Amino acid sequence: MASESGKLWGGRFVGAVDPIMEKFNASIAYDRHLWEVDVQGSKAYSRGLEKAGLLTKAEMDQILHGLDKVAEEWAQGTFKLNSNDEDIHTANERRLKELIGETAGKLHTGRSRNDQVVTDLRLWMRQTCSTLSGLLWELIRTMVDRAEAERDVLFPGYTHLQRAQPIRWSHWILSGAIAGNPLGVDRELLRAELNFGAITLNSMDATSERDFVAEFLFWASLCMTHLSRMAEDLILYCTKEFSFVQLSDAYSTGSSLMPQKKNPDSLELIRSKAGRVFGRCAGLLMTLKGLPSTYNKDLQEDKEAVFEVSDTMSAVLQVATGVISTLQIHQENMGQALSPDMLATDLAYYLVRKGMPFRQAHEASGKAVFMAETKGVALNQLSLQELQTISPLFSGDVSCVWDYGHSVEQYGALGGTARSSVDWQIRQVRALLQAQQA
Amino acid sequence: MASESGKLWGGRFVGAVDPIMEKFNASIAYDRHLWEVDVQGSKAYSRGLEKAGLLTKAEMDQILHGLDKVAEEWAQGTFKLNSNDEDIHTANERRLKELIGETAGKLHTGRSRNDQVVTDLRLWMRQTCSTLSGLLWELIRTMVDRAEAERDVLFPGYTHLQRAQPIRWSHWILSGAIAGNPLGVDRELLRAELNFGAITLNSMDATSERDFVAEFLFWASLCMTHLSRMAEDLILYCTKEFSFVQLSDAYSTGSSLMPQKKNPDSLELIRSKAGRVFGRCAGLLMTLKGLPSTYNKDLQEDKEAVFEVSDTMSAVLQVATGVISTLQIHQENMGQALSPDMLATDLAYYLVRKGMPFRQAHEASGKAVFMAETKGVALNQLSLQELQTISPLFSGDVSCVWDYGHSVEQYGALGGTARSSVDWQIRQVRALLQAQQA
Amino acid sequence: MASESGKLWGGRFVGAVDPIMEKFNASIAYDRHLWEVDVQGSKAYSRGLEKAGLLTKAEMDQILHGLDKVAEEWAQGTFKLNSNDEDIHTANERRLKELIGETAGKLHTGRSRNDQVVTDLRLWMRQTCSTLSGLLWELIRTMVDRAEAERDVLFPGYTHLQRAQPIRWSHWILSGAIAGNPLGVDRELLRAELNFGAITLNSMDATSERDFVAEFLFWASLCMTHLSRMAEDLILYCTKEFSFVQLSDAYSTGSSLMPQKKNPDSLELIRSKAGRVFGRCAGLLMTLKGLPSTYNKDLQEDKEAVFEVSDTMSAVLQVATGVISTLQIHQENMGQALSPDMLATDLAYYLVRKGMPFRQAHEASGKAVFMAETKGVALNQLSLQELQTISPLFSGDVSCVWDYGHSVEQYGALGGTARSSVDWQIRQVRALLQAQQA
Amino acid sequence: MASESGKLWGGRFVGAVDPIMEKFNASIAYDRHLWEVDVQGSKAYSRGLEKAGLLTKAEMDQILHGLDKVAEEWAQGTFKLNSNDEDIHTANERRLKELIGETAGKLHTGRSRNDQVVTDLRLWMRQTCSTLSGLLWELIRTMVDRAEAERDVLFPGYTHLQRAQPIRWSHWILSGAIAGNPLGVDRELLRAELNFGAITLNSMDATSERDFVAEFLFWASLCMTHLSRMAEDLILYCTKEFSFVQLSDAYSTGSSLMPQKKNPDSLELIRSKAGRVFGRCAGLLMTLKGLPSTYNKDLQEDKEAVFEVSDTMSAVLQVATGVISTLQIHQENMGQALSPDMLATDLAYYLVRKGMPFRQAHEASGKAVFMAETKGVALNQLSLQELQTISPLFSGDVSCVWDYGHSVEQYGALGGTARSSVDWQIRQVRALLQAQQA
Repeated sequence: MASESGKLWGGRFVGAVDPIMEKFNASIAYDRHLWEVDVQGSKAYSRGLEKAGLLTKAEMDQILHGLDKVAEEWAQGTFKLNSNDEDIHTANERRLKELIGETAGKLHTGRSRNDQVVTDLRLWMRQTCSTLSGLLWELIRTMVDRAEAERDVLFPGYTHLQRAQPIRWSHWILSGAIAGNPLGVDRELLRAELNFGAITLNSMDATSERDFVAEFLFWASLCMTHLSRMAEDLILYCTKEFSFVQLSDAYSTGSSLMPQKKNPDSLELIRSKAGRVFGRCAGLLMTLKGLPSTYNKDLQEDKEAVFEVSDTMSAVLQVATGVISTLQIHQENMGQALSPDMLATDLAYYLVRKGMPFRQAHEASGKAVFMAETKGVALNQLSLQELQTISPLFSGDVSCVWDYGHSVEQYGALGGTARSSVDWQIRQVRALLQAQQA
Repeated sequence: MASESGKLWGGRFVGAVDPIMEKFNASIAYDRHLWEVDVQGSKAYSRGLEKAGLLTKAEMDQILHGLDKVAEEWAQGTFKLNSNDEDIHTANERRLKELIGETAGKLHTGRSRNDQVVTDLRLWMRQTCSTLSGLLWELIRTMVDRAEAERDVLFPGYTHLQRAQPIRWSHWILSGAIAGNPLGVDRELLRAELNFGAITLNSMDATSERDFVAEFLFWASLCMTHLSRMAEDLILYCTKEFSFVQLSDAYSTGSSLMPQKKNPDSLELIRSKAGRVFGRCAGLLMTLKGLPSTYNKDLQEDKEAVFEVSDTMSAVLQVATGVISTLQIHQENMGQALSPDMLATDLAYYLVRKGMPFRQAHEASGKAVFMAETKGVALNQLSLQELQTISPLFSGDVSCVWDYGHSVEQYGALGGTARSSVDWQIRQVRALLQAQQA
Repeated sequence: MASESGKLWGGRFVGAVDPIMEKFNASIAYDRHLWEVDVQGSKAYSRGLEKAGLLTKAEMDQILHGLDKVAEEWAQGTFKLNSNDEDIHTANERRLKELIGETAGKLHTGRSRNDQVVTDLRLWMRQTCSTLSGLLWELIRTMVDRAEAERDVLFPGYTHLQRAQPIRWSHWILSGAIAGNPLGVDRELLRAELNFGAITLNSMDATSERDFVAEFLFWASLCMTHLSRMAEDLILYCTKEFSFVQLSDAYSTGSSLMPQKKNPDSLELIRSKAGRVFGRCAGLLMTLKGLPSTYNKDLQEDKEAVFEVSDTMSAVLQVATGVISTLQIHQENMGQALSPDMLATDLAYYLVRKGMPFRQAHEASGKAVFMAETKGVALNQLSLQELQTISPLFSGDVSCVWDYGHSVEQYGALGGTARSSVDWQIRQVRALLQAQQA
Repeated sequence: MASESGKLWGGRFVGAVDPIMEKFNASIAYDRHLWEVDVQGSKAYSRGLEKAGLLTKAEMDQILHGLDKVAEEWAQGTFKLNSNDEDIHTANERRLKELIGETAGKLHTGRSRNDQVVTDLRLWMRQTCSTLSGLLWELIRTMVDRAEAERDVLFPGYTHLQRAQPIRWSHWILSGAIAGNPLGVDRELLRAELNFGAITLNSMDATSERDFVAEFLFWASLCMTHLSRMAEDLILYCTKEFSFVQLSDAYSTGSSLMPQKKNPDSLELIRSKAGRVFGRCAGLLMTLKGLPSTYNKDLQEDKEAVFEVSDTMSAVLQVATGVISTLQIHQENMGQALSPDMLATDLAYYLVRKGMPFRQAHEASGKAVFMAETKGVALNQLSLQELQTISPLFSGDVSCVWDYGHSVEQYGALGGTARSSVDWQIRQVRALLQAQQA
């Protein structure tokens, strides 16, 4: 169009194109990820053009053949980018024209760059969601395998990081596996949205709506939030003070200064990535906020976000799987961390079963805890006489309360920590895994 | 428990309870929203206790009756909070005990406060999601009604805020209505999650997992992002420069300083709330990040977020419905904003139909635009001879290109801006509305 | 202006004003916080009008007197809001007119509502920053007092939550106090910005620029991030596993289910508020993003954010001060958590002092750690002969290494954990406290 | 240390090191940015070791010489990374050892990797802040130059995107330049913090505190928020509807589909980057939230954030400078957008000057606006008689009101839009620019 006489005042640049602007505008540095789906999309589009009578059969064949060549060059690493290739779409079309000549120009009939960009991204995300889903199921499978094998290990359940009640180690593992599971459902939603079975209902909305990107980034953020919590637990369990588990050397590093240390770097990195992934989600929503409808160049921000988050999720899920599969547990330390005061709730239930309303029983059990503390003995060291000063409902059978194995077996409701309940959870998750593979 | 001798060094406070801490800890100021679902949940739970043999039939009836009394007091505004009522659950149970005596203490058997909190919130959200869903459908219905009535109004479609091609006004309206639609689907997912048809699979996860809150906040953020974009368009269309629409006075305000002004405050507030709602979503995810598993008091942050976002969404959806239903369009201004250069793509398609590859046709049309600019005439003022200097394929029938009504009718593919296509979109959205009501 | 014939299609509302829009638009529910500064600002402005000859001396006196009455009514709780009082500015001006008649109308000469809103908010923030600053210094003072009194308590320093080297308990306390300190500097910046010594340079920018709000919200977010980290440390130190400290009952709560538990709710709430505060900061920035210059109603979002964050910070700082001032430390447990392997770095330094390059010394010390692990003994139980198989530089004086008190005294550089260095840090912070009071 | 027998259950990986974990852990891919400051820091540190007697003069010289060699290799692109070089610090030290032998091992004495990482990052940010500051001043300089040259162009000032009052074009430019200016102050704060004149007060805090990173990211977010608003204004001014300015071709792109279009991609990208930059800030704060004190590997997230944001800011500032310096203004369109109703406030002031209280005058002027609208004439077409039906204070001199140039000259207060006031603003900003260079 009109030539440009250059800057009017100040500024750094004079000339037809500002090289920094060109670089700022170009997306080729990251959208080359899309080469394969771009070719795939263009092949489908040329078939559509032929059907619509806008390409002859011969032209279509020429284009399809040319696109296969382009794909081959990318696959073999021989595709050469020109300095004018602003994005992957331009690059592929430029190369197609070099290979087959003017017919290449017909491929773009009735298709805007913006259509092409968004279609390519949807195709790419269909692939990446499938890959990430596989990695997520692999993590869940590993967790369930461990949960099954280590069902008989008891250790403290915590709330507020204070020791609460004895639970099975598998119960903890499954709380993570199950937290992972709804994510699978979300992914299904996303996959459904990307399967192109349905067409977009409105052409204005089609090029500017990025819900599928926002939802992917949010799915990843929520998934990372869960993983950050699992990592936090394991980091605590790795401390000298807890000593419940030991990370494999493959997932720890030493200190450059302190020779005795072994740091849970893998878990810390998993925890930290929650911030990075969420930051991308926050950034995209902020970019979208208040944009006029239809395409604006602002939307170009979607791709780097998706690529980075996809890479991060892929690494996190694999490392988490590795961590869980190689983790050693210290069963003895876990057992030693159980203490009679964690059975105070059981003591209250004992009274409930003898007919006392729960609130009173809770208070009575609290008195017993206080009495034991005052006397400096463990809760199970209080004599029957002492307990009877609190409530006459205590009798000799109270001794049955002081058994951790017995305690956990009480929680046989679905979702509980009894062996049968944990087994049921394992079966539930295995069923999901199987349904997934089918 | 053990009494507390107070502060050791510095500090403001001496005594058994720091009043600021008490207020900091208490949630009653906002969780009174939950009175109804708390009673509802407790009634269901007492039925469960009776079934399990932990309450007699008579005790259950006494509790159910008492709870009905509690609900009645809330409904009539006669419920009196004590200064010790830390949260709604404590308050209701305290009152129940006053009404029915010791039996009230049995209601809490085997149920932790954390269970109760999360169940109440799920119940409340089931209600609120249903309300918000109704408001969202109302907005969509209003949009479709307008879209149907104003199908024949043409105006410029924009990309990058630059005039692109003529489109139907209804096409724009539907791009918003359709963007609203997937949200309905999400809500269904959420509702499904909240229908308690399924039980939670793991007791540790059940009290600490807040996916249903995070997903609600994200749904609201994404919905607000869409509405912020619709608001941005309408704010632009309200400017003197665009003058495509005029807001009803009910949704505008005047200036305290400038008598001639009428500001689109309603739309600006809708746009601004995207930030507030997203901020709540961001805040919750940050609070969740890195928390140890199971319950931590940090999770108490969920409720104010949900309540505020629910109120905001409710107001926004109603105001948006009001804005859309009372908006005046300036059809004449819309028509005058159409200009022949917006048919440049049609000019290229004209050449494509004569056999020229699209890329060449695009270039040829660009030359025509440049020629018209240079000569200072409108694109449709170029003579046939002038056009033929660009391509010999131009002939007399090129004059058909210069008709806006004809132009939009070309886009008859599903999702396009042809009358038939817009009608199809209207039918699609109406079908969704009907499916919703069924 | 022009009357409004109501809705065109669908929608809920018919009439001149949509009541939901009115409520949506009104800010009086929260901006009544501003009554005092609004009166203060108006008094100053009326003096300016008199100076400029736009008010007579008598009119000014009448206005000043009327404004004092308005303030008195607010202070005594007798100010009555009308249903038409959209915001605090309208309310005060309406009341002024009732009190002094038409002269009230002159007060607004040459001042827009937007000017008034932003000036009021700046005045209010000057007050609130001063209050919060006082609370922050109180927290720091409490920390320094404890640091001084408990200088001789040693406990493990951690990196990656793995035990690293022995440090003084005061060193940990001061790491928090000092992290608090730069915040004071930020506040100074903010206060400087709000002191109105300088005038705003550009009238367009003055009404729409909200940097002072964004910076306040970010200061609060960063401050809360620090406090969340301090809270995390203390939550860990409160666990049964660490047992380094015990929270005062005033800052803990019991469990509704488990009688033996004492949960660190105060610390968990402090930690959680980082999310809430940051959410407000994120929300404001998102609201600001992409707004056209000058005033847009979107800017109204600033106030609720500032009010909520100010209240939250005030509570958090006071509760944190209470927690720190009443915390009990378990000195014996802290001491028992020290172990010889935490002196492995000292062992390396021992070799460095005998002339070995650090990297080799680090490796040698690592070999000693491994040897001790293999033999199942503590690091300081290795015999001299055993050590000499690793390096001939070991001799009898190696026994001096195995003294924790000696170890910490090595770190006498400024900022280190030696007694003299900790004393220096205490003096530095005390000097800041004193400078603050002056 | 102890060898690792590999996975226990499931999982993908068996062996001593998981290659994905290694990549996940390694930071060399991005921290090579730090090569120069790492060498610089190590040189300073070796001088410190010599002073402390831990290196001989000869050893120090050997190390300094070796480090110069390392730097030379990086500068010439001949430095070869090994696959074991986990980060830049390891790489440089490994290479130093190859070049000078065992003495290299002494360089690390008393310095942990974490110290080194944080010092390098501080040094790098000192450089980058200085560079970005230069670019920011360049942008401001360009804006002031234009403001000075185009002082006499009037156009509409907007609030709520509604035309408000006539202002000078330079007044708009300066509102941006001045919004840029406080940023310079922030940067000074940051630079002060990074100048190492002061030492960190506490060694625990020193390695884990990332305030300087968070503040940099927030400065960038706030700066981008301002630039997004300036970009939004210019995007609007570029629309056909406004047509106030025209972007240079160097900063626009055409459409792949619509030959007539010229899209403001540069401005849209500037606007979009606000999201990206803020996302990094949000991500870092989320990563920091709730971390235990001292070093945790999570902190490694700081660097990529800083590098990406620095690159983004650098490009944005340069492109913004280019855009502003080459922008064409359409003075005629600007003038035509002024209309008599924008002088309604002046009409009210006319009455104020005749003694009417402002509120009454505002109402009277509003009546005039309504009368003109009703009669379908411009506000300045109302006859004197017509005006006098509204207020008898109107007389012949009211005609002076209808002059745009006269209108803007009324706003001569500092910060206003009068020529003298705009000149004053130009002088203020120039003074800042000069102070900056000194």
